[in-house]
Amino acid sequence: MRILIANVNTTEAMTETIRAQAAAVASPGTEVIGLTPDIGPESVEGNFESYLAAVAVMDAVVRYDGAYDAVIQAGYGEHGREGLQELLDVPVVDITEAAAQIAMLIGRSYSVVTTLDRAVPQIEDRLMLAGLSARCASVRASGLAVLELEEDPDRAVDAIVEQAVQAVTEDRAEVICLGCGGMAGLDRKVAAATGVPIVDGVAAAVQLAESLVRLGLSTSKIRTYAAPRPKSVAGWPIGPRT
Amino acid sequence: MRILIANVNTTEAMTETIRAQAAAVASPGTEVIGLTPDIGPESVEGNFESYLAAVAVMDAVVRYDGAYDAVIQAGYGEHGREGLQELLDVPVVDITEAAAQIAMLIGRSYSVVTTLDRAVPQIEDRLMLAGLSARCASVRASGLAVLELEEDPDRAVDAIVEQAVQAVTEDRAEVICLGCGGMAGLDRKVAAATGVPIVDGVAAAVQLAESLVRLGLSTSKIRTYAAPRPKSVAGWPIGPRT
Amino acid sequence: MRILIANVNTTEAMTETIRAQAAAVASPGTEVIGLTPDIGPESVEGNFESYLAAVAVMDAVVRYDGAYDAVIQAGYGEHGREGLQELLDVPVVDITEAAAQIAMLIGRSYSVVTTLDRAVPQIEDRLMLAGLSARCASVRASGLAVLELEEDPDRAVDAIVEQAVQAVTEDRAEVICLGCGGMAGLDRKVAAATGVPIVDGVAAAVQLAESLVRLGLSTSKIRTYAAPRPKSVAGWPIGPRT
Amino acid sequence: MRILIANVNTTEAMTETIRAQAAAVASPGTEVIGLTPDIGPESVEGNFESYLAAVAVMDAVVRYDGAYDAVIQAGYGEHGREGLQELLDVPVVDITEAAAQIAMLIGRSYSVVTTLDRAVPQIEDRLMLAGLSARCASVRASGLAVLELEEDPDRAVDAIVEQAVQAVTEDRAEVICLGCGGMAGLDRKVAAATGVPIVDGVAAAVQLAESLVRLGLSTSKIRTYAAPRPKSVAGWPIGPRT
Amino acid sequence: MRILIANVNTTEAMTETIRAQAAAVASPGTEVIGLTPDIGPESVEGNFESYLAAVAVMDAVVRYDGAYDAVIQAGYGEHGREGLQELLDVPVVDITEAAAQIAMLIGRSYSVVTTLDRAVPQIEDRLMLAGLSARCASVRASGLAVLELEEDPDRAVDAIVEQAVQAVTEDRAEVICLGCGGMAGLDRKVAAATGVPIVDGVAAAVQLAESLVRLGLSTSKIRTYAAPRPKSVAGWPIGPRT
Amino acid sequence: MRILIANVNTTEAMTETIRAQAAAVASPGTEVIGLTPDIGPESVEGNFESYLAAVAVMDAVVRYDGAYDAVIQAGYGEHGREGLQELLDVPVVDITEAAAQIAMLIGRSYSVVTTLDRAVPQIEDRLMLAGLSARCASVRASGLAVLELEEDPDRAVDAIVEQAVQAVTEDRAEVICLGCGGMAGLDRKVAAATGVPIVDGVAAAVQLAESLVRLGLSTSKIRTYAAPRPKSVAGWPIGPRT
Repeated sequence: MRILIANVNTTEAMTETIRAQAAAVASPGTEVIGLTPDIGPESVEGNFESYLAAVAVMDAVVRYDGAYDAVIQAGYGEHGREGLQELLDVPVVDITEAAAQIAMLIGRSYSVVTTLDRAVPQIEDRLMLAGLSARCASVRASGLAVLELEEDPDRAVDAIVEQAVQAVTEDRAEVICLGCGGMAGLDRKVAAATGVPIVDGVAAAVQLAESLVRLGLSTSKIRTYAAPRPKSVAGWPIGPRT
Repeated sequence: MRILIANVNTTEAMTETIRAQAAAVASPGTEVIGLTPDIGPESVEGNFESYLAAVAVMDAVVRYDGAYDAVIQAGYGEHGREGLQELLDVPVVDITEAAAQIAMLIGRSYSVVTTLDRAVPQIEDRLMLAGLSARCASVRASGLAVLELEEDPDRAVDAIVEQAVQAVTEDRAEVICLGCGGMAGLDRKVAAATGVPIVDGVAAAVQLAESLVRLGLSTSKIRTYAAPRPKSVAGWPIGPRT
Repeated sequence: MRILIANVNTTEAMTETIRAQAAAVASPGTEVIGLTPDIGPESVEGNFESYLAAVAVMDAVVRYDGAYDAVIQAGYGEHGREGLQELLDVPVVDITEAAAQIAMLIGRSYSVVTTLDRAVPQIEDRLMLAGLSARCASVRASGLAVLELEEDPDRAVDAIVEQAVQAVTEDRAEVICLGCGGMAGLDRKVAAATGVPIVDGVAAAVQLAESLVRLGLSTSKIRTYAAPRPKSVAGWPIGPRT
Repeated sequence: MRILIANVNTTEAMTETIRAQAAAVASPGTEVIGLTPDIGPESVEGNFESYLAAVAVMDAVVRYDGAYDAVIQAGYGEHGREGLQELLDVPVVDITEAAAQIAMLIGRSYSVVTTLDRAVPQIEDRLMLAGLSARCASVRASGLAVLELEEDPDRAVDAIVEQAVQAVTEDRAEVICLGCGGMAGLDRKVAAATGVPIVDGVAAAVQLAESLVRLGLSTSKIRTYAAPRPKSVAGWPIGPRT
Repeated sequence: MRILIANVNTTEAMTETIRAQAAAVASPGTEVIGLTPDIGPESVEGNFESYLAAVAVMDAVVRYDGAYDAVIQAGYGEHGREGLQELLDVPVVDITEAAAQIAMLIGRSYSVVTTLDRAVPQIEDRLMLAGLSARCASVRASGLAVLELEEDPDRAVDAIVEQAVQAVTEDRAEVICLGCGGMAGLDRKVAAATGVPIVDGVAAAVQLAESLVRLGLSTSKIRTYAAPRPKSVAGWPIGPRT
Repeated sequence: MRILIANVNTTEAMTETIRAQAAAVASPGTEVIGLTPDIGPESVEGNFESYLAAVAVMDAVVRYDGAYDAVIQAGYGEHGREGLQELLDVPVVDITEAAAQIAMLIGRSYSVVTTLDRAVPQIEDRLMLAGLSARCASVRASGLAVLELEEDPDRAVDAIVEQAVQAVTEDRAEVICLGCGGMAGLDRKVAAATGVPIVDGVAAAVQLAESLVRLGLSTSKIRTYAAPRPKSVAGWPIGPRT
């Protein structure tokens, strides 16, 4: 099985972090391929950047000429999953939703600890759209920007742990989701510090993508995610910028 | 006052229809400027196209070098309004939300009659995200594609009336919103045939955009719609395609 | 255009404050007429008083023999708008709902800062009934009675600012609505102190009433707001008390 | 125990029907006193009439000089209960809410069958405000005006049964509430025809009023239903019209 | 009238406390019979114990060979009421739901103060299933285990009062429900200390059970609570353990 | 990996059907062990039977003395999963929830097609409790009893297809979940007849159970699903009946 995992920003080092995290939890025989968009921001923080990233991911995926059995979009709370589902016949899994689903299997309620305060509304909205917010206790911000996570992992763990503890005690969360693709790999450290299960979205998405492939299931094409109608689309795909 | 009204597709004739409808209801002294994206589909039907259109509208707006006091995004149920709100200091009004708000002022519940069946979930989702779905009785599809509206307005009126009547009798709607930017101008015909108030989103958006400007109000920049953080954004703006 | 703006209490000085605020934001050519009920409380605080005020406003409006194009009910969280919509053919705008709608156009969530604690549930209920509560972050009380607002505007601003700041930081509101007709005119002071957009319900209602008139739209009469059926109504209108 | 049951309209024959129904189910030792407002419509159908009736009931109750232990407001879906709760120290029970509560004890979901189509939104709104709509399957109109119920009880039963059957089969209701004070006494006939339990609001309210009195409980005065503040209230009480 | 009130645990002293509380509020002529399950935990705290208790209560009830007119299940937030409704033709009242209903008649919102923190989610879930959570302000834990209530009533009152006060001031509850069958009899003490009405579930349930019997109403058998289909059920009833 | 899959009824043939379906989709190296309760009904249809089955499954699991890495409860819409989560340290997956989660990954909304009409409310309630109902379009009954599925699979497919088609066209479902453990293995036939993805809960649960084990995650013990407190539990475990 081959899983294409798309980073949502243009920072290749983060793509590699995500790919490695995915590969580490993939089953034997599953190959994980990392994909970095050619256009868009170096980190995705806010709606403008998220919309641009959504299109950049679609652009990169449609221009990718290898074979794959499933696609994972590795941005937390970002736009775009629905578009990929229209464009592709293989399953598409968003890490925000994957983490929430896994969390709901192991606790009555979950919280998400993410990066900046401005990411909170986007994550809340994506969970609401996915129908996964009923058991979401809270979405909390650690105050760290996406790229700061890479620069100082220890500080990241501290900031995440602080919010995770508050989510458990004040918001009554029973499971914590790490709310950023760039947090991949921090789950064990945060679990040790908080005593509750920690879900990493990338790892969760790999399991769910593999599950869909094994079940022989993919996106329903009956209505919402039907393939785009044939028509003139100016400037598409956007392609590499020189 | 100058209002920039952005079509979401690349069909210039539709931009002109929308602009003319907006100008017809604008107050004396308000200038309405139509804007057509350089990239994207000739009509927007589905999530892939809608995401691309969202970015195309942002691209066109940031590259527009004239002055304006407010922006209207004239796509029904389309993505992108949040991104424009981040990028701009002037108010941004989406026709989907404008129509719903005006409808809620004049009836206990409203329905939207749109184009294709696949547009229904997107409109439902946008209304939910905007917090305007509690009094939405239904979103119904006329079965007409966006471009068919322009080609055969009489057939369009018939198809819209049929769904509007069902919305009133079966779904208990008391007001009907015309759920497509391309339906601008059909409101009086549909009202005559159904006996309930009909809200055209473009006209509604012009009134609300003017209202915000007169009130001296614009988007709150405190959290969700704060300006993008300074960073490297590859390939932005996308610019004209040659 | 002539807009009839009805105070909900019998304090004529407050009617004049409200009328002046409305006139200040009305478009050139719009005449604003203040209306004071003949019966009811000197200020409206609580359900008994609100129900009485609702009937008093209807009574005053049906006995008013001038012409008008729209009616604004200038009580925050008060009963009665639905009754006026049945009795009249022109649009009716409630300031509670107008403020919420304008707020939702410029921020992801809004809070209301009102007078006494006992007003909070009524405002919450009116927003719920109007379908406008999904993006309401909170309704907060400043602790000031309605008539205290007039007596000591500086103290009013301080108390409102304190709650507004908490709404923004704790409840994550991005816009604040001034939750009392008697707060008209305080918006600029509170905005300066808080840094978020402040919506005055009276000003918002004037814009929306003008919008409806310009759009040629009024209340749907198909079901909920159909005119009252012909029947014997004892003691109606109540008329002036001597 | 003495229970004051207030009709919401000025039709004394209907007051007597309601009073008799209440007395028939009251416990031995409970005296039921009927009260008819002096002002307001002969039947209450719509918001204007309902608001007027709300005030008329409050007016009649505060002018009633006898002793009583509880008050029942016998209008289905009508305004006003909150105002009575503020004015009185004894418990106040609304028949709409009483019927819904009893229904929820004996079935997973319930429907209300009421009079005219225009009454449906009001009943839905009152149930929502009371927090009782989660298990409400539907509110259906029989098409009969309030006064027609008295004139032709057989036709009333037929029309109610037709809607009740549809509520059970199509809306999956398991209990039916008779949605009009004037339907008091029809419960057994409708039950025989439908095979599901039928709840009469008047009878339900008598039981709940007696329950509250026996439990020594009455309205919480801590916030929403605190007594009105001392102030000048013009023209109150309204008093008898001559 | 004879009411069978089932304790959910096997502690006979608690059955007697509950029975006495029920008898104290029952009408003259109502006999209250206490029932203790033969199997299950000495106190019910958590889902495993609650499921076992649900079956234990059903087992005890079906093996009880006396006559009765209604059954009360006297566990707060426990499973099982739906099963009893299927097995029996007489009304079944759960004390969790009874308390919530009575509370909603006398205040705009209510809170529940229960025993251990782990009981909170179960109570929330039962209220949600019963459609009674819309006006639930909060469910709070006093931190006392069920059996500690019996051992040290004074400490119990203190712990309950502390949470009740916070529910009123922070969660804006206007009525407090005592969230444990073992709290029966503490209502007056807590009311004196808090100033808001206190609802004891056992007392509330007795009133509602009597109400249903007087109204001649019992569980609808049309769908959800139809009698079990005839079939082989191994090991049922479970019977006394020796 | 060893997965224990518990049938909820005492029909061993159905246990074998379920076990075989699970084994067919399990990964190489995963052993699936079927478990049949000693007590309870031959098929589970309704709340009484479901509560008894919940306890019977817990009883069988705690008495099972083999090793296992995860437990699947293979009853659709049945009670009990929360209790197992308290009793066990390994992950517990309910097929109702597993099917819904997988369905939500591949379509915007899903419907469940189950057996008898009386199963519908239970499934709706379990989905609501699990926080998975926001994207549930409907739960529909085929009208077949559980044991009829085994007796006449062709008739079962026809009845399921009929409801599935209505769910897709009328309720706008995009994915169908087979709502009975006994429907295991019918998914391909129903998919062929309807053209939308069909999710079998047993297969879905196997994937999710394996996913949790691979991720090293299990139930959070912080609050709701903490292990039962040490105490006297009469008659537990219930043990085999002779």
